[in-house]
Formats: sequence, structure tokens, C-alpha cells
Amino acid sequence: LLKFEIKDRDAAGRLASLSLRAKRISTPLFLPVYNPHLPIITPKEMAQDFGIEAIMVNAYLIYKDPILREDALRKGLKRLLEFDGAIFSDSGAYQSFRGEVPITQKEIVTFQSELEVDVGVMLDVPSRNESREETKASVLSTIERAEEWRRIVDEMGGATPFWEGTIQGGAFEDLVRLSCLKMKRFPFDLFAVGVPPKLWKNYEFREIVIQGLAAKRNLPLDKPLHAFGMGNPIVLSLLVAIGYDIFDSASYSLYAKDGRYMTELGTKKLEELSSLPCECPVCVRYSSEEIRGFPPAERTKLLARHNLYAILREMRTIKQAIVENSLWELVQARARAHPRLLEALLEALRKGRRLFEDLEPIRKRSAFMYSGPESLHRIELKRAFKRLKARLSASRSKVPAALRSVYPFGQAIVPEGTFRFEEEKEQKPKSLLETLRIIADYQFGSGVGIALFPEEVEVEVSKVTGRIRRAWLGGRLLATVAPKDGFLRLRFQGALRLHNALAWPAYRVILVEDKEVQNIVSRGGNVFAKFISRCDPRIVPREEVLVTDSKDRLLAVGQALLSGREMTIFRHGLAVKTRDCLGSL
Amino acid sequence: LLKFEIKDRDAAGRLASLSLRAKRISTPLFLPVYNPHLPIITPKEMAQDFGIEAIMVNAYLIYKDPILREDALRKGLKRLLEFDGAIFSDSGAYQSFRGEVPITQKEIVTFQSELEVDVGVMLDVPSRNESREETKASVLSTIERAEEWRRIVDEMGGATPFWEGTIQGGAFEDLVRLSCLKMKRFPFDLFAVGVPPKLWKNYEFREIVIQGLAAKRNLPLDKPLHAFGMGNPIVLSLLVAIGYDIFDSASYSLYAKDGRYMTELGTKKLEELSSLPCECPVCVRYSSEEIRGFPPAERTKLLARHNLYAILREMRTIKQAIVENSLWELVQARARAHPRLLEALLEALRKGRRLFEDLEPIRKRSAFMYSGPESLHRIELKRAFKRLKARLSASRSKVPAALRSVYPFGQAIVPEGTFRFEEEKEQKPKSLLETLRIIADYQFGSGVGIALFPEEVEVEVSKVTGRIRRAWLGGRLLATVAPKDGFLRLRFQGALRLHNALAWPAYRVILVEDKEVQNIVSRGGNVFAKFISRCDPRIVPREEVLVTDSKDRLLAVGQALLSGREMTIFRHGLAVKTRDCLGSL
Repeated sequence: LLKFEIKDRDAAGRLASLSLRAKRISTPLFLPVYNPHLPIITPKEMAQDFGIEAIMVNAYLIYKDPILREDALRKGLKRLLEFDGAIFSDSGAYQSFRGEVPITQKEIVTFQSELEVDVGVMLDVPSRNESREETKASVLSTIERAEEWRRIVDEMGGATPFWEGTIQGGAFEDLVRLSCLKMKRFPFDLFAVGVPPKLWKNYEFREIVIQGLAAKRNLPLDKPLHAFGMGNPIVLSLLVAIGYDIFDSASYSLYAKDGRYMTELGTKKLEELSSLPCECPVCVRYSSEEIRGFPPAERTKLLARHNLYAILREMRTIKQAIVENSLWELVQARARAHPRLLEALLEALRKGRRLFEDLEPIRKRSAFMYSGPESLHRIELKRAFKRLKARLSASRSKVPAALRSVYPFGQAIVPEGTFRFEEEKEQKPKSLLETLRIIADYQFGSGVGIALFPEEVEVEVSKVTGRIRRAWLGGRLLATVAPKDGFLRLRFQGALRLHNALAWPAYRVILVEDKEVQNIVSRGGNVFAKFISRCDPRIVPREEVLVTDSKDRLLAVGQALLSGREMTIFRHGLAVKTRDCLGSL
Repeated sequence: LLKFEIKDRDAAGRLASLSLRAKRISTPLFLPVYNPHLPIITPKEMAQDFGIEAIMVNAYLIYKDPILREDALRKGLKRLLEFDGAIFSDSGAYQSFRGEVPITQKEIVTFQSELEVDVGVMLDVPSRNESREETKASVLSTIERAEEWRRIVDEMGGATPFWEGTIQGGAFEDLVRLSCLKMKRFPFDLFAVGVPPKLWKNYEFREIVIQGLAAKRNLPLDKPLHAFGMGNPIVLSLLVAIGYDIFDSASYSLYAKDGRYMTELGTKKLEELSSLPCECPVCVRYSSEEIRGFPPAERTKLLARHNLYAILREMRTIKQAIVENSLWELVQARARAHPRLLEALLEALRKGRRLFEDLEPIRKRSAFMYSGPESLHRIELKRAFKRLKARLSASRSKVPAALRSVYPFGQAIVPEGTFRFEEEKEQKPKSLLETLRIIADYQFGSGVGIALFPEEVEVEVSKVTGRIRRAWLGGRLLATVAPKDGFLRLRFQGALRLHNALAWPAYRVILVEDKEVQNIVSRGGNVFAKFISRCDPRIVPREEVLVTDSKDRLLAVGQALLSGREMTIFRHGLAVKTRDCLGSL
């Protein structure tokens, strides 16, 4: 089984670890496509000079070249390419689609297996996104092809690569949905979305987002999601934010052949560049004039190297933004590369609302930064305003002063009037307790505050900042207030009170009936996804959750890394990082 | 005399060439500040590894160190630093201001001269921007100091460096204005604005913009404008857009000592970086973990190198944006690095409106790209709407179809409703002429169309695009329509008609009374600023202009590189690139 574990997250994006048997790579991942007929940057150079851990090779092109095929089968693809990393292959569906000599599913599936690639892909039927009929035909034919693929793989037996199933449907949401619902019944390990070339060629980013969101919403969340052929750095952060994990493209070399120079704010023509706005090894060494002066082959190579650096730079920037929880801010900055990208971002925030409601962490490591009117459509604010109303009968024009340090209110740099705090009362011991209760109500639900923090609670305040740090009851620690985001971090004593206050299944994560697992967790072990039998589906990542057995006995309290919807689907990786447990009593 | 020539421009920013006697450097320019007591990156390395052509050194620090001083005077600063590029020096005003042992104007002015730096600075009195009184005192004392500086320089005689005068006034617009009005009477070669450290430390970008615009508006446009101590890449593009030419900072090394890693979207703490979002020689070679693992001195050096690469990358990006005429789009993307930067951008568009009206090119090489509501405040649109109303009695809700290919209407990617074209009429020969006339009215003024293009004009249309290419009259070419921006490019025959149609001094650039100059221009030579005696002050860069002698005899027609206001001020560089001339008749 393919191991895919979420390590960190932001928006619907995820930083994950993908284990392909012995090889472990991290996503979001960009796979440079290597064309053996156009070896501009070799896989060996990709590994050595660029630190590339995974590439994509078109198995079809190798298959169609008798000498290359012979060589690949004799030496093995790894030795042929002198590449030790993971190899994804492509099936040639796109080439057949362009009218080249077709290949059969059997040929290409068998061949990918023989090549011992790490990840192979079925032979699908791409769509042009030209008409609904044409697109629907591609969806239906691809489903038939998946049946064919299953029969062939079943017959093959033995070790085969991991397989990608291809989603079609273009920008027709209902067709994408149809494609997903059918395709997810097949035992694919990953899913790839066929983005019609027309869309990215014409900068139809809005349509690309509509397609991506439709796929994301209708496919299992525990499978990596791959966007075929996306290699323009300006759009990658947005695609990660809506939930794509893997990208592949030969753009770095195709653009180079065309004399085009990639930047994260758009592609430029080399001849229009007076100075090279980059500090990659190519651009540090050569000026624009010097590169133009080289013979075409050398110029293409230099440009391709720069382009690959530019894409990888953007991938690292995206990863860093996920860790910082500032992915939306990055997407918003990048959206200024083209008005159509800004349109696509607005569409993503509109159409992806339910997805983000499920997947966005409840609190973040970075401040909420206003970057334009679209910021007000971000789920962090919408969710916060909704909670104000539902849990505190408050509104954004009168945010309780108790939430002054709580995310997003305390960490928002937004235009005046976005929300307003009510006037602060004098800080008395009484009002400190009141503050704690309001935070608890905001965090867990109306009425939780009083149950969690009775009158006898002693509130400890930081002597330096004057802020609430801890809540004690009878000498026992109930909860601390996180200095960065103002949310409550419960200790087991507090969790017991919360557990009493909240009716099942609110905030519960229920372990499987396995004494050993339950023992480990109740003695401080973390909760892995595979040991969860059910849970509150409304749990949002980074929330405090109650870990129980099936009889609702509280075993531990901790922080969710996965959303409720993910917890019951994922078979790998951490689901809850526990903080305190029954065993500590 | 200092030679400062505009080569290209966008917004109020300019790509210029600055000649310091034998040394020629280009602006916008970033001067890394080198502290001889903290040699993290040496000037030699700056030149070799970073291609740095100019640095800033604090003369005060050298003066205060007897050994260093002795060495510098004996060897000369260039040999001491092993640096061949241009050396700007700082006076120690800031150090005195921080309470260190003061230095006298005489000491530091003489010392800078002895060091043979290329550009020295007077000893000013910085302000803290704390109160109006304190700031006003700094303005007034600095003016007194300038008197002192003038006496000393006058007495010195002989070759001295070029000198920078310092503008104070903090974010108090009227005080900045007062400072400029007084300081510009002294024979300084450049002006530097003292940005109170408090402002950039607290991200008070709005105040920095207010100060910068006040300085820009009240100082002579032909002198380079320097912002002291600005070294955060996120703000540099905005500062260039409002008209700053030179920046200096030690931020690259100071941030490095603090473990901070610069990016164009904000500064990160090294320990928070999981992957390094950069492809500079440092980041390609080391991972974040590896850099953290080095001993402090080595770590600081690596970080400082990365930071300097990041700043230089941004400077090159800015230069490229000026050449592309996409500087505002870059500023808008960068403004998403921090909400205060977005605020500052809005302030710049508001407060700088008159400045941009004078300086913004009338047509651009890049499309007008919508990047958020602030785009609608850009002068390109405002100016276009104003011309519609004044020259065509039209409005943005009914833009004549004739302007479909004219900048910005034909090159705008903006939300629906920003403006609307009226319905297009069928293209008949008659309507082609009408189209040409509307373009002429839009470009030159109401009524020009009929005068420039009488009924007999033959309109040549491109067979490929169907667009108007040329206008002929009696077998003679009057004008072509630029394919990229739809503006008219006049030939001399057309210019004669325009000249007849427009009352003096509209669109005139009038040469000095110098037969030789007039001869050269009327035979096809370009017009240099120093040969202009007067001109229409409403001329905007990249407009078609009529070059005449003082008797309003038309000598040539061409494209303005400078605005009307600049033409009469600048003593160096090209003012009008001529296209056709009297001699061609």
C-alpha cells in the first residue's frame, strides 16, 4: 500500500510524506518531465544540481523507440537514466490523443511494470474541454479504460508499480464529479487530473480551479492528487491551496526552447530582459545578453536550468508558507501576476468554501494579513464570525474583548472596520474568569465556559504581559492559554470537564476496539489515523479533541492534525498529537 | 558636474545612468553599507561574487579609529577596501545623534575629501520623528549645517567628492517641504532623505511614502534622490515607484546577525524555515538545517550573503519592471507582503497623483493589469478617463470603439464594468477615417482629428489583422498607428498638420537659439535636454512632440523621453527621440 501521511497543512494544502516502498519523498512535489529524445537536463543533473528526488518520464516515448526500449528493458530504467530517485511514468494518452500511433492499455501497462517505474498511469482518454459532449465522452471512455486497466493489472499479479487513475471532465463540474465517483471505485493509489492544455495555454485559471476543486471534493482525501502538466510557477501556490499535491511538467524545457524565462510573477521573453531578476546559479553567472549570445542549444540549456530553479524555488516557497500557515497570503501575492489568476483565487474562495471549512486549521502560526478585498472571503474570518454569532451571540461589530488575543481577532492586520472589539472592562479576578469562559465558549461551544471553569477556578496571569496563562482548580491545572493564538490547551483535568459538558460525539475521536492501542494512548501515546474508528466529523485541524474508547471513556486530550472527515479515511500518519492522558492522573 | 541621465522610466521611477567622473553606474541602485569593524562581506567579495558596483562606507567610523584612519589616508580608501567601484560615504550624523562622541562638519567634510570617496555627505542633524518640534529643530539645524558645509567646501577648493544634501522633516509634509525648499538652494549634487529609523522599524511604510513624496515633489527632478537606510526588499519597488533612485543599508548583515532571512515577501527567522525559498548560491548549497548548524560567525556570513542576493534580486526585478512598464504591477504584488505596505501603496496613489500625472508615460509596453481595487486609482486609468471626457465628450461607460486598440483601453485586463466600449460600427472606409480622427483627438486634443486627417486621407489597413496601419495624404505618409499601443506615430507631414492645428505652445519642445543644434535636429538628430529652452509643461513622457525653434518653426517630430517639467530642468541626457525631420522633406 502507498503510504501518504500529512505532516503539516494550511488552506486545503498539505505538506505530506509519500512513501513509494523504500523511497520517501515529500509533497507538494514538482516532477520535472524528462524526455529522452530531448535530453536538455538529464535526470542525473536533476538529482545532483537541483536535488530532485522524483521525475516523470513518458513510458510511451520509450516504448515507441525500439533502441531505447531495448536499452530500458535490459538495463532497467534507473540505470538507463542514471537516476536513483522515484520515477513516475506517463502513458502516452496525450500523444495518442494528438493523433500519434495509438498504443494499447495492455502494452503500456505491461511496459510500465516491466520498466519498474515507481508510479505508473493508466491509459486514459484526454479531453479538449471543447464541448460538453466531447468531454463527457472522454469521461466515459476513461472509465471503460479503467475497467480494462483493472483486468490487466489483476492478470499481471506480482509486484507492479503504484498506479494513478486519471480524472477527466474539463471545467464541467458535474462531469468531473461523475468521473471522480466512478474512478474512485477502482484501486488506484493516486489520482491525476487531466487539465486540458487549452486551459493553461489560455490562462484560464478560473476553469482550472473549478476543475481542481470538483476533483478534490469528490475524491478520497487520503490519496495524493496530481495535476497533469501544470508547470507555470505563477499558479502553483493556488493549486496547492485548493488541495493539489503533485505537479509535473516539461514547461521548464519547452519554455526554454521558446526563449522564455520563468519568474514567479510571470514568464518573460529572454530578449526583453535587460537584467535577470534572479540569483540562481545560471543568472548569477551570466547576464541576459550573454545568454542570448550562446548558440541555441546552449542557450536553451541555460534557460531550462534557470526555469527549473524558478519552479523549485516556488515549490520551496509554498512549502515554507504551509509551515508558517501563510499560504493564502502567498497565493494572494502571486495572484497579482495576472488578473485571471486573481479571478481564479476569488473563484477558489467562493467555490471552495465548504472544502476549506472542513480542512483549514482553526488557528494559525502567522497573523491574518489583509491583502485585498478577497481576504474578507477567507474562511478564517468567515468561520470566526460564524462562531461569534452561534456561540457567543456576538457579531463582528462587537467582538467580546475577551477574544483580544484569540485567533484570528488578536492576530489580524486588517482595515479598520473589518471587526470591532467591544470596550474592554477593567481586569478584575472576576473578569479574568469571564474572559476564560468566553474563550472556551468561542472555542468549544456555547455554555462550555461555565462548565469548564467554575467559580472556584484560579486564574494565573503572566507578570510580564498581564495576560492569562493558566487556569487551576483545586491545585490542578485545567488548561493553559497559548500565547501565540490565545486558544485553550487542555490538560486532562480540563478535558474531563469538557467531556462532561459536551454531549457525544462533539469533539470526540473514538479509538478502535483494541486494548493495546487504547492502553498506549491512555499512557501518552499519540493517535494514529488507522486506530480511529469514528469521530466528530465537524472536527477541524488543530482543534483540541477528546480521545475516547467506544464507551466514551476519556483516554487522552490533544490537538487534531487531521480534520474529522480525514480521520476516518486516512490509514497512515498521525491524527491527534496528545498532550495529556488518563495515565497522568 | 554630476551626470544623471534618464534612460527609461515607469511610474515616477527611472532607470538612469549616474556618472561619477570616470565611473558610470546605473540606478535604481542599492548600496550595501560596509562596516570596516564588522567585515561580514568584504567590498572585494561584493564586487567579485555579487557584481556590486557601488558601496557605502561610514567615514565617521574610519575617522574614529586611529589605526584605520591612518591606513585609509596612507593607502587611500580604494586600496584599503580593495574595491574599484564607486564609494559613497556616510558622515556619522546618525552616530552623533545616537549620543556618540560628536564630530565636526569640518572634520568629516575634510576627511571625506581626503579619502577621495566618490560621493560624500554633509553632517546633518537627524530627526526621531517623535514630535513636530523635535523634527522642525532637526530641519532647521540641518539647514544651518548646510551653510557650514558650503563654507567649508568653498574654502577647500580643488577636487572634492560629489556631495549629498540631507532632507529632514520625518513624516511631516510641511517640514519636508521646508527642508527641500531651503536645501535645494545649496549646490548639492544629490539629495538624501533621512528616514527616521522608527518608521522602518515599525513598518510605518505609509509615513515613509508621505515623506518620500513630499521630498520628490519639492526637489529638482534632475538630481538623484537617495533614501537613507532602506534595505528591506519588500518596500524597495514602492520607493522606486514614487521616485527614489538610491538606497543604502547594512540590513543584509544586521538581519543576518539576528538570524533573519530576507525574501521579497518578508523577513523570516532562520529557525522557522524548513526549506529555503531561494536559489541563490548559498541556498542552493546549504539547507536551512545546515546553516543553523554552523558556528555563529559562519552562519551570519552565509545569511548575510543570502540577504544581499535577495536585495539585489529585487533591485534587478525592479529594473526589469521599469523596462517592461510593469512597475505598478510589481509594487502591487509586493504590497501583499504586509497590510501596511498595501496601505502605503494606496497612500502613494492618492498623494502622488499630481506627481504621477506629470511623470507617468502616456503609453506603456505592458498591458494594464488589474491587481485589486487600488488599480482603479492608477493614473493610467484616471488620465485616460479624463481625456475621454475633455477631448471626446465620452465617458468610461461609453468608450468610443475607435479606441479599442489604444492604450490603456485596448491593453487593459480589468474587471467587467471598469469601462465599456460603445457598440462597434461596421468598418467602412469612412469609419476608418473616423477612427483615426478619434484617436488623434484622444491623443492630442479635441478637433485635432479633422485637422490632421482631412477627407482625402487614404487609410491603409493591415491585411492580416484588419487594423489601421498607416494614413497617407497625396502619396505622403502622415502617420502610422503603433501596433502595440494604438497611438499615432507622426511623420513630418503629419507633424506639420498637427503643428498648424495646435496653438503654441501645445506639444512644443523649443530648442535653444543655436544654429548648429537646430541644424542637427532638423537633419534627424535627437534632442538632448541641455538644448531645450522651453516647452509645453504638460508634455508627458512617451508623447509625440513637435520640436521647433524659438520662432515656432517645426524642425522635427519625435517621442518625448522626459516630461515637460523635466525637459527644462535636466542638463544631461536625451529628451526627445526624433522620428522624422524637416530635412526629410
